Amino acid sequence: MTTTEVRVLAAGSALPGPPVDNAALADRFRMDASWQQWVDVFIGTRSRHLAVDLASGEVRSSLAELAASAATRALDNAGVAPGEVDVMVLGTATPDRLMPATVNTVADLLGIDGIPTYQLQSGCTGAVAALDIGRQLLLTGEHRTALVLGGDVCAKHFDPDIDLKSLSPAELVNVVLFGDGAGAAVLTTEPVDGAPVLRRVLNRLVGLGRAPGQVVDWYGQARRASDGPALSEDYKAIEELVPVMAVEVLEELLTSLGWQDTDVDYLLPPQLSGTMTARIVKDLGLPAAEEVTCVVEIANIGNAAPFVQLERTLPELAPGDRAVGIAIESSKWIKAGFALERD
Amino acid sequence: MTTTEVRVLAAGSALPGPPVDNAALADRFRMDASWQQWVDVFIGTRSRHLAVDLASGEVRSSLAELAASAATRALDNAGVAPGEVDVMVLGTATPDRLMPATVNTVADLLGIDGIPTYQLQSGCTGAVAALDIGRQLLLTGEHRTALVLGGDVCAKHFDPDIDLKSLSPAELVNVVLFGDGAGAAVLTTEPVDGAPVLRRVLNRLVGLGRAPGQVVDWYGQARRASDGPALSEDYKAIEELVPVMAVEVLEELLTSLGWQDTDVDYLLPPQLSGTMTARIVKDLGLPAAEEVTCVVEIANIGNAAPFVQLERTLPELAPGDRAVGIAIESSKWIKAGFALERD
Repeated sequence: MTTTEVRVLAAGSALPGPPVDNAALADRFRMDASWQQWVDVFIGTRSRHLAVDLASGEVRSSLAELAASAATRALDNAGVAPGEVDVMVLGTATPDRLMPATVNTVADLLGIDGIPTYQLQSGCTGAVAALDIGRQLLLTGEHRTALVLGGDVCAKHFDPDIDLKSLSPAELVNVVLFGDGAGAAVLTTEPVDGAPVLRRVLNRLVGLGRAPGQVVDWYGQARRASDGPALSEDYKAIEELVPVMAVEVLEELLTSLGWQDTDVDYLLPPQLSGTMTARIVKDLGLPAAEEVTCVVEIANIGNAAPFVQLERTLPELAPGDRAVGIAIESSKWIKAGFALERD
Repeated sequence: MTTTEVRVLAAGSALPGPPVDNAALADRFRMDASWQQWVDVFIGTRSRHLAVDLASGEVRSSLAELAASAATRALDNAGVAPGEVDVMVLGTATPDRLMPATVNTVADLLGIDGIPTYQLQSGCTGAVAALDIGRQLLLTGEHRTALVLGGDVCAKHFDPDIDLKSLSPAELVNVVLFGDGAGAAVLTTEPVDGAPVLRRVLNRLVGLGRAPGQVVDWYGQARRASDGPALSEDYKAIEELVPVMAVEVLEELLTSLGWQDTDVDYLLPPQLSGTMTARIVKDLGLPAAEEVTCVVEIANIGNAAPFVQLERTLPELAPGDRAVGIAIESSKWIKAGFALERD
């Protein structure tokens, strides 16, 4: 048991290239105006940043490069030098390679060495899992400063020459739903004035007996895992379960902290798509909370999203302010969230 | 800070299919007797278990299935029911899919739900990293029983029809060096009589400025990461650096615990290959230690190896016995090790 408090000193993010709007996507994939309208209205995501250059098809940036840029911003914002980092944790669904782990390439780019590093294989809740591990490693008292990161680059699965009309809806949705990006945050056990305390992190598998809501496969030199598509979504299950689970996470966080729903000043909701996030925020029904959402402009960037939300929220927090972040992973169904309070 | 002690209750492992010896490999790949002799003498690994059936080319078992079997054995040996597990940590370089994370598929197979789960993307030091995370999560006092796992299945990169004569040495070595398998251990904060205390876990990136010694790539639907081979080894760097780093890990563990080299009763050395492991054991020079090595019969099984060594060691430990395990990861160079003591 321990009484140490872990604080979030700062956050930072990095996105590749210029924003790609739905008109540019429609143009590249030879889709008509009605398709673009369908994306605008039913997905509600208006643009995204892609690691693949849409015109040339070339890959512009690796996850390691984006994560190192995000980390540099977070460290600068925190006033912490790379050499002061005691432990690194990166969450991603799409590592650059299976080995070396991307977190170690990021360490190399930052000039960090001689510390424990961990890379979590994770989806939409990976940023929360990284915060969770970072916080717990600091709570043991063995480390003082943690650099936690999250990010995804879908370039290896993104084919700018694919015929969208040939795809099933479960595959098609991936083209419009996701963006690439990385984010980072610096955690500390130092009682730094103005840095909010990470009061709770919730991270819980709830997938028993449930079919995966999202599958992302990888191919080896000799074969792939299954005969299905490499990426697919059971978005009916996602539409049904994610809002319910988001409400459950909120209730559990508030109950465990003794907070009322009127106590939450900032809400960092799940970043699935413009329309899904709007629906979830409505269901969460936090009357006093300002919503911090970026999915409409930068799409669903998986493991990076909560860090972008944190980057926008941290400078806004006044003394006494409370913030709640929620993430739901549909892959095998994980409920996750965190609660911040500035003292 | 905490004074909790974490103990290893039991371990278990699972290997796919029957052992495949060097003669069977030579036969399948149409290599001659001199090649087989080269493997016997210079690699020193005599057999391995493969998830791919060598005759039919079919994939026999997934990592999730092997890990669930290993976990069931570890839990049985520990007398712990799946429902008593508070947290799961799996280390692997070769997850079945990118999403869902394999650890969550394993949880499903075991009937485990409602707990935090973590999957580390890791190579040869992944089992130690999983022990490390499992131990630290228990040290915070938030959990009582951790199920830690490690395993690798190289089936997606293993092509039984490949022409070995066309491969560069950096690729060829992978065919003979590696096997498939999974392992698990149960950690507890309960003061269980006879269960050794996990006194130290060391896990440290030392890769700054060093080129990766091992690369494993993955391919997406649209492309791969690089133009090089999917798997390659800089085995000159491995031969040069791993023995030196193994000695450094041993020295650091002994110094931090105030143990003499004559205090170590069991040595669980890195499991690279028969010849490399023999050389490392010689360099470590522990006069009183019994060596626990399985690489000659089951090859290098990556994230699973230390669990197989633990499974063999735990029942042998008498009161007062001390054991040291060492693992070195060449991907981006990680030094790792752990120390056990039965009180």
